[in-house]
Amino acid sequence: MASSWVPDIDPASDFSLANIPFGIISTPDDPAPHAAVAIGSYALDLKVLTANPDLSSQLFPSIPNLPEAFAQPTLNTFAELGRPIHRQVRTALQNLLSTTTAHPSLLRDNPTLRARALLPQSAVRTHLPMAIGDYTDFYAGYHHAFAVGAMFRGPDAALQPNYLHLPVGYHGRASSIVVSGTPVRRPVGQILLDGKPEPVTAPSRKLDIELELGCFVARGNEMGRGIAVGEAEEYIFGYVLLNDWSARDVQTWEYVPLGPFNGKNFASTVSPWVVLADALEPFRAKGVEVEGRPEVQGYLREGRAESVFDVRLEVDLTTAEGDTTTIGRTSSKHLIWSFPQMLAHHTLGGCPMRSGDLLGSGTISGPGGVDERGSLLEMTENGKKEVLLAGMDARTFLKDGDTVTLRGFCGEEGARVGFGECRGRIYSALQK
Amino acid sequence: MASSWVPDIDPASDFSLANIPFGIISTPDDPAPHAAVAIGSYALDLKVLTANPDLSSQLFPSIPNLPEAFAQPTLNTFAELGRPIHRQVRTALQNLLSTTTAHPSLLRDNPTLRARALLPQSAVRTHLPMAIGDYTDFYAGYHHAFAVGAMFRGPDAALQPNYLHLPVGYHGRASSIVVSGTPVRRPVGQILLDGKPEPVTAPSRKLDIELELGCFVARGNEMGRGIAVGEAEEYIFGYVLLNDWSARDVQTWEYVPLGPFNGKNFASTVSPWVVLADALEPFRAKGVEVEGRPEVQGYLREGRAESVFDVRLEVDLTTAEGDTTTIGRTSSKHLIWSFPQMLAHHTLGGCPMRSGDLLGSGTISGPGGVDERGSLLEMTENGKKEVLLAGMDARTFLKDGDTVTLRGFCGEEGARVGFGECRGRIYSALQK
Repeated sequence: MASSWVPDIDPASDFSLANIPFGIISTPDDPAPHAAVAIGSYALDLKVLTANPDLSSQLFPSIPNLPEAFAQPTLNTFAELGRPIHRQVRTALQNLLSTTTAHPSLLRDNPTLRARALLPQSAVRTHLPMAIGDYTDFYAGYHHAFAVGAMFRGPDAALQPNYLHLPVGYHGRASSIVVSGTPVRRPVGQILLDGKPEPVTAPSRKLDIELELGCFVARGNEMGRGIAVGEAEEYIFGYVLLNDWSARDVQTWEYVPLGPFNGKNFASTVSPWVVLADALEPFRAKGVEVEGRPEVQGYLREGRAESVFDVRLEVDLTTAEGDTTTIGRTSSKHLIWSFPQMLAHHTLGGCPMRSGDLLGSGTISGPGGVDERGSLLEMTENGKKEVLLAGMDARTFLKDGDTVTLRGFCGEEGARVGFGECRGRIYSALQK
Repeated sequence: MASSWVPDIDPASDFSLANIPFGIISTPDDPAPHAAVAIGSYALDLKVLTANPDLSSQLFPSIPNLPEAFAQPTLNTFAELGRPIHRQVRTALQNLLSTTTAHPSLLRDNPTLRARALLPQSAVRTHLPMAIGDYTDFYAGYHHAFAVGAMFRGPDAALQPNYLHLPVGYHGRASSIVVSGTPVRRPVGQILLDGKPEPVTAPSRKLDIELELGCFVARGNEMGRGIAVGEAEEYIFGYVLLNDWSARDVQTWEYVPLGPFNGKNFASTVSPWVVLADALEPFRAKGVEVEGRPEVQGYLREGRAESVFDVRLEVDLTTAEGDTTTIGRTSSKHLIWSFPQMLAHHTLGGCPMRSGDLLGSGTISGPGGVDERGSLLEMTENGKKEVLLAGMDARTFLKDGDTVTLRGFCGEEGARVGFGECRGRIYSALQK
């Protein structure tokens, strides 16, 4: 991969020329949200870039509707154009931004356009990248499912009988998905205190995170017609980090028999830049292998073993005093089901996907110690042990004023494919 | 209530002058979906009616944006205007359509406009009335929850410990909600056959219905701010019938520990005409009272006892041969939680509602025999007994070719407030 002429790209930047993730920004000159890509510490404004028809047709020949797509307040229209178009556009942008660009006069040597189209990320605001019709959260993080199951039912009954046969998942709440940086109010809910049988209504005392990979659907299937696992990659737009904030005490009381509800629907945070499926292709890995696992049903059988991605994931907790501790490090390879398998299962009965639908992987934890876990529930054994923090502090669950930042990246310095930050700060349930 | 000059209104019509439900239609002259109300066997085209600015301002003084709202392909914009506006518009339409109308020249005595605006329902197509952001299904049908719980856990443990304390609910799938008349494909899914521990992938053998009342949200709350139970009525637009089709065998295998998923997300059918909250006001009733019930939490306490509605509900099953049997009769008063309580609980932790969100009551069954049940699961004790049908036929669960029609209405003949039909026909999982 060549390098980029864009100035000052840190070798550790998530947004190298090898990445080119798509997002939605508003700018001082144009407050209407519209499309951009991230490169180094800059955002390249795609609405500005494609506003000139000559330049647009030279850069993206034979994709006439791109200017309209990039002027939209979400990426759904672009996503629906399909993976061959995403690939073509990403490649053209990599060429445009490369030191070896075939078109230096278009942008690199065009100071007027550069000043308008290439903006410091610090000068733009990012927005939710997609209009999310439905959000589904799976439970494909094997070590998380095992650890949580063992905690409540013991190691011999840790996994439910269906777990190795199908990607267990549930319908989440789309309306409360927010973009990184949005503050998160501690939810009030019904909880049981001190083992008493009658609930109280109070702010959650077990506010937790869930470290997940999120997958945005590019285009939908016809209702009644499933998506074959072998074709599912063509329905995937790209990936984000996802923090599925959870109120464990609310969830414990409410979830029988129909699953999580208010314990989850107060907020879920996604990172703003969608890493295209193509950008992750070089980082394929095998998912979790379980000895003696029964053969999966035919509709879930994939043609390749390397069906997940090895994204290095980290969780930072920053206290109100400003001390930051990395409390978890793991990888997105610790999934037992791939996103194509999740899509094939989700649509097996005919459920229609739509462009912009979000699938969550479920919490991702590694097989090792507590520092490989994607939730405080696991790190603290449901509040029994403390996680030690910088600044002589410690946590069982989150305190008001805490900021949680998820990070994730693949690849070597100088050619990293990363997600940037997925960040949220907790504020008090009682704040007016 | 006066009667209407609209011709040939059957006294048994659900759409008397006392009702005036809103829907979305397309017509031979205007294939773009837009707003209408139902009156007798006619649809009054509100886009045509309000296209003339003079007439619109005479009919609806001081609501200048109605023509735009009624030209939309969904009722969301109209719903967001709020209940005082819905009330004003419904009252004006009742006046316009009444034999005692103050404005006979506007429509009754205007044959040109009548021919264009007042169309037989048989000549128009109805569409999904709202763009549904999120769909939540509750479990507030007390006798259903008790009967199903008793079936699987015995009568002493029929209700889970949380059931009397909070409106149990789960997030459903919005993308597979369809309007009455849409055919429903029998879903394929993973099921356990004959008690074997390993699943097979096959068409569901336990395809069922769920008789529910659906509630559309008028307008949203700010994220992080709940809706007080006493204010929740102002957030309600209106009601429809809802058939939450269920594949019981798929659900049984998949639902632990995160709740129903593919057993539900293949289709849910709603009736096309939204009965406004105001139209149901005269039919308030007390919900289910349970002896020894613990006092509910403060945020769920309502100012009035009559917090639900007594809508008479019926379920018809029509075989492929055309024989129709009414297999269930009950009332929507058999709820233990009201929709305001559901809204207050749903938003307790700050979850944002949006205009068009759909809340399902959960299956509604009466306290009596099997003919008062809202699901075949209950009527047949999970397939152990048969429901006898006209035409020497019988069912445990649905067969391909079966049509299920839900009906519901309040009030006396000549002044009925009803929902029309919520209908769906099952076709084979194997059909190409």
